[in-house]
Amino acid sequence: MATSEPTASGADQDPNTANLRPSSTTYDQAWMHGCTRKLGMKICGFLQKNNSLDDKGRLAGQKNLLSCDNSDRDARFRRTESDFSNLYARDLLPAKNGEEPTIQFLMEVVEILTNYVRKTFDRSTKVLDFHHPHQLLEGMEGFNLELSDQPESLEQILVDCRDTLKYGVRTGHPRFFNQLSTGLDIIGLAGEWLTSTANTNMFTYEIAPVFVLMEQLTLKKMREIVGWPNGEGDGLFSPGGAISNMYSVMIARYKFFPEVKAKGMSAAPRLVLFTSEHSHYSIKKAGAALGFGSENVILLSTDERGRVIPADLEAKIIDAKQKGCVPLFVNATGGSTVYGAFDPINEIADICQKYNLWLHVDGAWGGGLLMSRKHRHKLNGIERANSVTWNPHKMMGVPLQCSAILVREKGILAGCNSMCAGYLFQPDKQYDVTYDTGDMAIQCGRHVDIFKFWLMWKAKGTIGFEQHIDKCLDLSQYLYNKIKDREGYQMVFDGVPQHTNVCFWYLPLSLRGMPEGEERREKLHRVAPKIKALMMESGTTMVGYQPQGQKVNFFRMVISNPAATQSDIDFLIDEIERLGHDL
Amino acid sequence: MATSEPTASGADQDPNTANLRPSSTTYDQAWMHGCTRKLGMKICGFLQKNNSLDDKGRLAGQKNLLSCDNSDRDARFRRTESDFSNLYARDLLPAKNGEEPTIQFLMEVVEILTNYVRKTFDRSTKVLDFHHPHQLLEGMEGFNLELSDQPESLEQILVDCRDTLKYGVRTGHPRFFNQLSTGLDIIGLAGEWLTSTANTNMFTYEIAPVFVLMEQLTLKKMREIVGWPNGEGDGLFSPGGAISNMYSVMIARYKFFPEVKAKGMSAAPRLVLFTSEHSHYSIKKAGAALGFGSENVILLSTDERGRVIPADLEAKIIDAKQKGCVPLFVNATGGSTVYGAFDPINEIADICQKYNLWLHVDGAWGGGLLMSRKHRHKLNGIERANSVTWNPHKMMGVPLQCSAILVREKGILAGCNSMCAGYLFQPDKQYDVTYDTGDMAIQCGRHVDIFKFWLMWKAKGTIGFEQHIDKCLDLSQYLYNKIKDREGYQMVFDGVPQHTNVCFWYLPLSLRGMPEGEERREKLHRVAPKIKALMMESGTTMVGYQPQGQKVNFFRMVISNPAATQSDIDFLIDEIERLGHDL
Repeated sequence: MATSEPTASGADQDPNTANLRPSSTTYDQAWMHGCTRKLGMKICGFLQKNNSLDDKGRLAGQKNLLSCDNSDRDARFRRTESDFSNLYARDLLPAKNGEEPTIQFLMEVVEILTNYVRKTFDRSTKVLDFHHPHQLLEGMEGFNLELSDQPESLEQILVDCRDTLKYGVRTGHPRFFNQLSTGLDIIGLAGEWLTSTANTNMFTYEIAPVFVLMEQLTLKKMREIVGWPNGEGDGLFSPGGAISNMYSVMIARYKFFPEVKAKGMSAAPRLVLFTSEHSHYSIKKAGAALGFGSENVILLSTDERGRVIPADLEAKIIDAKQKGCVPLFVNATGGSTVYGAFDPINEIADICQKYNLWLHVDGAWGGGLLMSRKHRHKLNGIERANSVTWNPHKMMGVPLQCSAILVREKGILAGCNSMCAGYLFQPDKQYDVTYDTGDMAIQCGRHVDIFKFWLMWKAKGTIGFEQHIDKCLDLSQYLYNKIKDREGYQMVFDGVPQHTNVCFWYLPLSLRGMPEGEERREKLHRVAPKIKALMMESGTTMVGYQPQGQKVNFFRMVISNPAATQSDIDFLIDEIERLGHDL
Repeated sequence: MATSEPTASGADQDPNTANLRPSSTTYDQAWMHGCTRKLGMKICGFLQKNNSLDDKGRLAGQKNLLSCDNSDRDARFRRTESDFSNLYARDLLPAKNGEEPTIQFLMEVVEILTNYVRKTFDRSTKVLDFHHPHQLLEGMEGFNLELSDQPESLEQILVDCRDTLKYGVRTGHPRFFNQLSTGLDIIGLAGEWLTSTANTNMFTYEIAPVFVLMEQLTLKKMREIVGWPNGEGDGLFSPGGAISNMYSVMIARYKFFPEVKAKGMSAAPRLVLFTSEHSHYSIKKAGAALGFGSENVILLSTDERGRVIPADLEAKIIDAKQKGCVPLFVNATGGSTVYGAFDPINEIADICQKYNLWLHVDGAWGGGLLMSRKHRHKLNGIERANSVTWNPHKMMGVPLQCSAILVREKGILAGCNSMCAGYLFQPDKQYDVTYDTGDMAIQCGRHVDIFKFWLMWKAKGTIGFEQHIDKCLDLSQYLYNKIKDREGYQMVFDGVPQHTNVCFWYLPLSLRGMPEGEERREKLHRVAPKIKALMMESGTTMVGYQPQGQKVNFFRMVISNPAATQSDIDFLIDEIERLGHDL
């Protein structure tokens, strides 16, 4: 439950209101408790205390600003400070005398958010309170999603905020394992709050001086970690790994066929791209969008662990050339989405070198391992890549969105994308306009994605990211060791996972004796969706599943959540067995 | 100044600490003042009050949690609550006992942010405190942008947050007119804070049920306002207008040449796109990126107000066909970036109909006018478009990023972009998977851009947006009326602006008598950059300038900031004259 529900009686009062004249020690403890738990009530308690000490009548004058009277609570409506019922958005800043209600409104919102933060980390709360689309659309207990012509009061807006969180999914909950991006980093959260308060745009130094410099320094640091000399090169933060991967294809094309920028694809021969059959679908999307055609994105075979077979790459390059195509680009995946596989970058780089192809490493998911001295060897050879996608919003726990495209050759992003818009990129500004990096992007306006990441790096140090990554990989090995020989489990591939992905089938009792064959396959295919549905309905945990190639639906467990512990892994196993044992 | 600077002496104390035993009325007023002004100090004042009433010794035990002792302030360091000097990111949630420091840290951040919000709307503060890149890179008074291996204390992190805001630009300041996106909407800000706390992803209903539904309902509402029957169609929120425009080109190509998705551009004839010479550069960028080639983006001539001349479109279509090209797509701009011009959509739509071309309306900047009964006629004919870009983060004051691509034909976005990734878009989920809209996008992960906008719409109502837009247009007319015949001003084009863009040259005294000619042009070209530089160095206001075609640098004033008033317009004029009169 994401909201602070009212209590029906006054028995369960806030410690502040219940202790108007406490003994000193109790009072302080109660207050500190209140301070961190319910800011609004603390303010109430504070007012009431002064009230009781001095003059009850005085408070009446404040009623319209802040009311603590809970006696008229109506169980049908969640409690909000009553002063907001007559206030509207138009009463907030920049309105005259808008400062008081503005700050009070924001503090109410912050109370809702800090309550949500606390509950996110509380294992006694659910991960989600599942409802079907039609249920939410019909309106849950007055939560009306429809927009109207007339404004709603700020009281209703606060209710809407609570309800939005109540019916959402706690992606930071220690038992949320559903995506590659999990967790709720407090520093990152603070960074996002500041970013949205600054509300500016990355396209020019002029209006984002600090953020532009932070981006440049951070990208340089990332390039150093990739292993490019002195961290030289290009890069920017894009709205996600798919766009970062799209950039890599664009700049590869620009490098070898710069005339395509002006003349279009007809100026180039038939170009082909190579990527693993296990790679992220964004390479194929980029191929389709950029005019190569998805059929010209050639899928490479993998070994049983999902890693590209270099010989297959070479064979397919030769085959493509024989068919009159021109091989352009190879994507090596550093941490595949489902198996967590790392393609052998060095062997792929040798082939790219031999045939003069652009090498991109999609490290959206696995790039974070570069921060770990223990695990970065899995990306050996990445320093030979021409470009790298690396999403700090995945393995490094940075809030969404935060994805970097890193490029070894300086100037190529600008060469590929610049259109020199006069209204933004005036050459006659008073500062060094090489810091106006917006024309390198396919976007015009660009969200400030850097600050939260920069702030987290400051707050944790490189060493803090390393510890987080090592811990997540340890946890996934704990899970692997626990289930690899456990009754009812079957691993999708053998051996210790390279990344935190642990892929497995759970076999209900009814399937355990069944011989291999189509009937068993069909039944097994239905197990993971069924368990997942029950899991979501009970709201206790979330983990993903999918088929892959000829393999029927299996669970893909991934760990990037800093809140997860061994007990949460144990819980997940227990929960799968509880829900699935008798299917 | 964005930070709460320490005062050297104790004379300028916070009202709370200065009034430990006030008279009751004074105290309450002082407290209410403190409540909204300095939350941290309020907490301190509260603790000290209890301390003075009961037992000073007790407070010592709280020292590590919250200290109010300012006596050891060092002028070289900004004040933070001293308890954070020994706390690190690792002490916050999910750490054991991390809840107290987490909430206290977030409250400190909120204090910094609410101070910033207050100052943003305070005309006695500067819009910016300008520094050159090299100055910021060298480190301003200990503001070190470099990242390191070791973590910094939370105290330093709070200082970093203050410094980041201090050296940034107040885009919500009533005198910030530099971009199309200005202002700081409090409801939108609250929405962004909530969005980042929820930290989820738009790709599936599974992990963003409420946000996915909000997006669908809001897009439907926007399509209704565009004028498509029953608001039917497609759409999504993209990371900005450039990407939205890119979507429009992609789906136009898919509509007429669906085989390009699989086969690439070689499967299509030479396709050409048409857009005004005044249109946003993103159409050209899209043409280059998607494989059309920027030369196949044909620029249309405009009248003196920057509006496309329909006859020129038809002539260029015929010309392109004669050259063996296939006209595909026409972009009509609804509110151009520099002039604020609205292309005549109905006349363009007639031509598109005649030649069977895709009609896109780039209403990134002007789409907001659809919310105004008084001004929406400027977009007449938009209901005949096949697709529309509309950025609520511009004219409607929604925080960045918030851009919608709206499409009349349902299903075409999915047809164009879907790749059916099994790990995300499982068909065997327990809920109606038509709500998993992620595969329509070229992105995989997609930031939640909808909530702030939905919440603002709830809080203002359609009517609130209308009032905002009408007010901004009134203000721009006020500016126009004030300068059109004023000495020293020359309008770039005649007549009342269609949008809030007011384009003008300011002529310093030395230029006023000078005859037309190259010398005057060269001198005039240098005036706006010089005034702008002085403006930024004095930090008083910000307005954009640029050349356009053969026209030398001129100011482009735009008004989307809800905080701006006539007095701010007056201030801008005074400031231009103060800084430019004697150039």
